[in-house]
Amino acid sequence: MIPGPTPVPETVLLEVAKHPIGHRSKEFSDIFISCINDLKWLGKTNDSDAFIFASSGTGVMEAAIANSVSPGDKVLSLVIGVFGKRFAQIAQTYGGQVETITADSGKVIDPLMLEEKLSKDKNNEIKVVTITHSETSTGAANDLKTLSGIVKKHGALLLVDAVTSLGCMNVEIDNWGLDIVVSGSQKGFMLPPGLGFVYVSKKAWEYNKNCKSPRFYFDFVKSKKSLDEQTTPFTPNVSFICGLKKAFEIMKKEGLENIISRHERLKTNLRNGLKKLGLKLLTEDKNASAAITAIYPPDGVNVPDIRAAYKKDWDITVANGQDTLKDKIFRIGHLGFVSDRDIEMALVVTEKVLKKLKS
Amino acid sequence: MIPGPTPVPETVLLEVAKHPIGHRSKEFSDIFISCINDLKWLGKTNDSDAFIFASSGTGVMEAAIANSVSPGDKVLSLVIGVFGKRFAQIAQTYGGQVETITADSGKVIDPLMLEEKLSKDKNNEIKVVTITHSETSTGAANDLKTLSGIVKKHGALLLVDAVTSLGCMNVEIDNWGLDIVVSGSQKGFMLPPGLGFVYVSKKAWEYNKNCKSPRFYFDFVKSKKSLDEQTTPFTPNVSFICGLKKAFEIMKKEGLENIISRHERLKTNLRNGLKKLGLKLLTEDKNASAAITAIYPPDGVNVPDIRAAYKKDWDITVANGQDTLKDKIFRIGHLGFVSDRDIEMALVVTEKVLKKLKS
Repeated sequence: MIPGPTPVPETVLLEVAKHPIGHRSKEFSDIFISCINDLKWLGKTNDSDAFIFASSGTGVMEAAIANSVSPGDKVLSLVIGVFGKRFAQIAQTYGGQVETITADSGKVIDPLMLEEKLSKDKNNEIKVVTITHSETSTGAANDLKTLSGIVKKHGALLLVDAVTSLGCMNVEIDNWGLDIVVSGSQKGFMLPPGLGFVYVSKKAWEYNKNCKSPRFYFDFVKSKKSLDEQTTPFTPNVSFICGLKKAFEIMKKEGLENIISRHERLKTNLRNGLKKLGLKLLTEDKNASAAITAIYPPDGVNVPDIRAAYKKDWDITVANGQDTLKDKIFRIGHLGFVSDRDIEMALVVTEKVLKKLKS
Repeated sequence: MIPGPTPVPETVLLEVAKHPIGHRSKEFSDIFISCINDLKWLGKTNDSDAFIFASSGTGVMEAAIANSVSPGDKVLSLVIGVFGKRFAQIAQTYGGQVETITADSGKVIDPLMLEEKLSKDKNNEIKVVTITHSETSTGAANDLKTLSGIVKKHGALLLVDAVTSLGCMNVEIDNWGLDIVVSGSQKGFMLPPGLGFVYVSKKAWEYNKNCKSPRFYFDFVKSKKSLDEQTTPFTPNVSFICGLKKAFEIMKKEGLENIISRHERLKTNLRNGLKKLGLKLLTEDKNASAAITAIYPPDGVNVPDIRAAYKKDWDITVANGQDTLKDKIFRIGHLGFVSDRDIEMALVVTEKVLKKLKS
């Protein structure tokens, strides 16, 4: 029950196991285009282009930066954990003059602080804002709708890490004006890790045109040119894209609003159950991600022992904290192919694990 | 019978179909390190580091450039087809001052021309040389051993595209002094497309240290730091790496010299058989790649009709030419999971296809 790789349905695994077909065939082209259309459905966008890369989530975060940030550009990075920090580091790597607003572990970005920061930028020197929707390292989720509204008013380009939120939480690319949105296959998409997804708005294309940073594999222009010919510029991960088509069939059968409400329910039930067990959670309810929950160990019990007990007695992997939170919290993922049954099981097992460690 | 995706053994597909395990687990770490060691076995190197990326072959070509070429660096690109040209384009994208030696379609780089070119570079201004080992677009293979010797004598860093040669032709990274070598999973590795491989020599690390080009996802320093901890910096393609372990088991059972001689035999038998059918081949025997063969259509028969007949009557896909060779040649791949039986079958089918089209 880690926050990625997440569970993969057997029907998807069986698609992945089929012999890869030629990537320049009509057969594959149809599958590819169907996935592109379903990506747009998932991100609630008609206006943005969607692309698929053979890459991890970090690769497509770099794609977002390399296609929009030129050396010297002012970038504001909203950091609420490891992955927010990573977005800032990538922008720095590409020569961005990066400022950050950083929230404490488990907290989210205060809209008033963002508004104040941007209102001081009278000459619109801040070109790009990066934001993490759901922060995997803490289980906190920013109020993306409110924050994106503030950025839109200012006019900077908005780059969104939706790696653990897309396919799990509501993401409205067109309505909220999200310019570049990135995600990855091993999260809400119910696939193994290996595909990165990118959405590119009309405004992002303007930035791409003027962006002086070098890029080739992740260059949006090459992807778009090939997409117009119903193909990819470089050999795609054929097997996973065939698996993705199957995953989308499952998602569309459930329905997007049902997927979102299921994750919301799983989160709430897990959090309530954990609190009943006397556990303290890292995030407040109002800031909680629907994808992952971070939990403090009870007094006198340490995180490695908890993880070992889950693994040894129940064959369940839960994640440790990352970076400064290592050994301070443990994390349970509940995104993608996860049901109410899994949450009840997680709660029962957690109760037994703690009982054993405390006795 | 295209040059990638190539056939994948069922035992490998079944590994890929298993549920992905956690990428930070001891279990995965062991599989990952076993693959890294086998990569070094395949490339005959002890001195170079080997890395695995979730990426296509072009991604790791970019990795090679982004870790070695700084803006303004003089780069010499040896171009014998589409993929050689791509290496030059990537170097240009990163600000390299690129010169090329270009061979005609189906021909290879003349060692004397390279020697002459480099001997004129008295002040060692040429920092990097890029070379394609086996050129997928033409089926020609450079004499990598001889050419690398000439580059070594000059002192430039040697970047090698071994995408279609590794696991098929002899590549001796240490003995030949190859500095950065890249390859991809969907070729000699008997896997679907989705993994890129990179080898990095000690000399390449010196270049990396001084290289001013931005890179994050493909940064060798991050990969090396994680490799030292038996892991990857970013979520790897867990499923394909598990499949890779199985593919290496198959390869090691056959033995590296047997793999190389099998490909050599398949190539020779295919070429001889095609010539017996009266077909003209794009490359001379001495320049022929062991991975792929490019064939001119007989007079009065066109390439699209040939490809359609293979597909319709025999359910076999053969590749068209690329770029300027489109519709001028067709290509049969014979690398990876290919046996003598497949070559005999290809010859019989080719005979029947041509007979039908000529009648």
